[in-house]
Amino acid sequence: MPRSEPGSSRRPLADHSRSHASRGAGRRYTDGMSTTTVVDPAAETAQHRLARAKEASRSIARLNSGEKERALEAIAGAIESNAADIVAANRVDIARGREAGIGDALIDRLRLDDKRVAALASAVRDVAALPDPIGQVLGGHRMPNGVALEQVRVPFGVVGAIYEARPNVTVDIAALALRAGNAVVLRGGSAARESNTILVEVMRGALGGVGVDPEAIQTVDDFGREGARALMQGRGFIDVLVPRGSAALIETVVTESTVPVIETGAGVVHIVLDESAPVEWARDIVVNAKVQRPSVCNAVETVLVLRQAAPLLVPVVANALQSEGVAIHGDDVVAGLVSNVIPATDEDWATEHLSLDISMKVVDTLDDALAHIRRYSTGHTESIITNDSRNAERFLAEVDSAVVMANASTRFTDGAEFGFGAEVGISTQKLHTRGPMGVSELTSTKWLARGAGQTRG
Amino acid sequence: MPRSEPGSSRRPLADHSRSHASRGAGRRYTDGMSTTTVVDPAAETAQHRLARAKEASRSIARLNSGEKERALEAIAGAIESNAADIVAANRVDIARGREAGIGDALIDRLRLDDKRVAALASAVRDVAALPDPIGQVLGGHRMPNGVALEQVRVPFGVVGAIYEARPNVTVDIAALALRAGNAVVLRGGSAARESNTILVEVMRGALGGVGVDPEAIQTVDDFGREGARALMQGRGFIDVLVPRGSAALIETVVTESTVPVIETGAGVVHIVLDESAPVEWARDIVVNAKVQRPSVCNAVETVLVLRQAAPLLVPVVANALQSEGVAIHGDDVVAGLVSNVIPATDEDWATEHLSLDISMKVVDTLDDALAHIRRYSTGHTESIITNDSRNAERFLAEVDSAVVMANASTRFTDGAEFGFGAEVGISTQKLHTRGPMGVSELTSTKWLARGAGQTRG
Repeated sequence: MPRSEPGSSRRPLADHSRSHASRGAGRRYTDGMSTTTVVDPAAETAQHRLARAKEASRSIARLNSGEKERALEAIAGAIESNAADIVAANRVDIARGREAGIGDALIDRLRLDDKRVAALASAVRDVAALPDPIGQVLGGHRMPNGVALEQVRVPFGVVGAIYEARPNVTVDIAALALRAGNAVVLRGGSAARESNTILVEVMRGALGGVGVDPEAIQTVDDFGREGARALMQGRGFIDVLVPRGSAALIETVVTESTVPVIETGAGVVHIVLDESAPVEWARDIVVNAKVQRPSVCNAVETVLVLRQAAPLLVPVVANALQSEGVAIHGDDVVAGLVSNVIPATDEDWATEHLSLDISMKVVDTLDDALAHIRRYSTGHTESIITNDSRNAERFLAEVDSAVVMANASTRFTDGAEFGFGAEVGISTQKLHTRGPMGVSELTSTKWLARGAGQTRG
Repeated sequence: MPRSEPGSSRRPLADHSRSHASRGAGRRYTDGMSTTTVVDPAAETAQHRLARAKEASRSIARLNSGEKERALEAIAGAIESNAADIVAANRVDIARGREAGIGDALIDRLRLDDKRVAALASAVRDVAALPDPIGQVLGGHRMPNGVALEQVRVPFGVVGAIYEARPNVTVDIAALALRAGNAVVLRGGSAARESNTILVEVMRGALGGVGVDPEAIQTVDDFGREGARALMQGRGFIDVLVPRGSAALIETVVTESTVPVIETGAGVVHIVLDESAPVEWARDIVVNAKVQRPSVCNAVETVLVLRQAAPLLVPVVANALQSEGVAIHGDDVVAGLVSNVIPATDEDWATEHLSLDISMKVVDTLDDALAHIRRYSTGHTESIITNDSRNAERFLAEVDSAVVMANASTRFTDGAEFGFGAEVGISTQKLHTRGPMGVSELTSTKWLARGAGQTRG
């Protein structure tokens, strides 16, 4: 089993250290006459952690499947045996969050209790049980001149993640990254600092215990905004960066990054109720998509109802939602059919509520519904409820989102539901991967060419 | 056959047009007392072209395979029948380039003669003959609750390209984008302006002639730097941006873009001559990789020779290169074995010469060669010449480049050689695609879910 070289794992790459120190990793003293910079070679920067992750990624890439399974099993075991400390650290985060007035939906995402810690460990074991994608031969052929070409799956190298205060993401992404032979650099939301610190410590300890370089898991949480900036600008060290969280966080990462980004998550998710929508499907699917877990990205935010069916469907669906405590932001037609409707503003159509709020609008035609979706969708998930297979197929073909559904709840857009094990996120971009991302989506490929002296004519 | 709606194809998307005009698409007059902005609603901006491409992409995405083939055939035919005008326009570019003192390698890339115009048309026909990737079902399964999941290949939407003065890229990328059901927005090097203008005009005319929306092919060449900026910042309009050209151009695009980018091309390509390298393979492959077409990215730039084999290999390989007019930038050991060696500087190891220059260095071990490659490679292509299959397999496994070869010329890293038809570029990033990119690499995927009222438990 590979082991990090003694004494080397804590040292940054020599070149990088030099260039960085000369840019002022040390402290600066002013003596009134001149300014002297005293370089402290021991001062650790976020870039050093990136460099150590890159260095570690080489040995991680060479682990075989069994070695990676043992490393993940060690992580799962260590999470279980440190459960009490993890929950205690999380309590500190929760208390600080309550003091800071964080809303219930965010507190729910932040919370770790015994059951959720057990679920974390179990998710790691699920990832360990997934097939190893590395080394898979994706294709190949012999060139006419006899050179043998082969395309194989390889790790990315170093996966970066920037996310909000959800400690389960810390473990999920580290486990998925490792399964795919990658090192990982994590930057979680500051509200989950205590939880993330102990989780990273526990995971690194577990790796060291089975002879895997613990430098393969890094956090830059303690560098604040500078840590996030180092990730976003980490060309040469970060091979892919995955932001997970609010639209604002994702926008920042996409705009400021010079490393390749996989855009995830923000979901202004639509359900269209077609003229032929069976009433019970419409009611049950909308209620499930809004109420089952309102704080996540695959929850529905806007319901579009075809005008001809509105008198039948709007009261049934709206009453069912209201009896579950959902506030309806509706247009005039909706307000004319149901009581207690908050008048919808233009902003509502573009809003990811992530709460027990829903926007509801009546449209004249399926064309109008499609146009509304084109304008306001974030490309995550949309579903149509219909009994008309022509409309269903048109919707499936024309809606340009990661997941397009007919007659199913948008809550199914999820790595576990799709059978991928734990999930890195839901990609809403078109490059590399689209929709729920599992282990295979954290890999790249390379081409191998084996010849016998061939030259190009 | 789909046809753009009458009168609509020239109109920008209403919303976009409004917001842009209010940001000052018009002219500004100063009368000495106050500043008045007169908005000219007819003023066309680069953003309008992006919006028109996006609008057109919807009808292009719905073309079936036969319709796309007819469109490409029309383009090929139009290029042939306008060959004289194309060559004449190109002569203007060449003359201006010579006046501006552009080097021979760049003039070679810029030049279109009758033979090369015929090759352009023929490349378009090759693309038309490629299998249509759109609609391909990549996988799927039924969820335990009965929802049928299917992953299908879909177009990106709008492909953007920023490239240098190579008019063949204008045609290659437009053809590949169309084959994959995409609209395209092009920004070529200003030195090829006349050539690109006529090529885009000819291609748009050909599309219009067969009832395909000509707005699917756009150029923003006439907006200068503003055109490039519009592409790089075109979120919501550009689904993927492909830069092709020098390291500096690619660096700019990667740094300034907020749209997803596929990094291509820059190649500091290495060949390692192992201790067991057969002398003739070493000589023939290095000469072929350097001399056959020195101005392209898969040409070798640095040769690393294992010390034990240096006295045998360096003179043979260096003399063969020198007799082809190649200047050798060598280290001290190389200079001691061959005459007329230019002393290599540190900069040489990081340089993509793109000319009849080559860097040559002697290294102690294969480890040293791998370390040199890790430090200086741009991740394009590296090859080892060896008779030792253990070293060959180690090199193939450990080198982290798009294409890794044993005993073959690096010139084989090429879409046509790989059997992809015309090529969009060589991806040197790990996201989405790596190595030569063909039609399939210009597509995305989406998930379709067909249910019967299922909700999540």
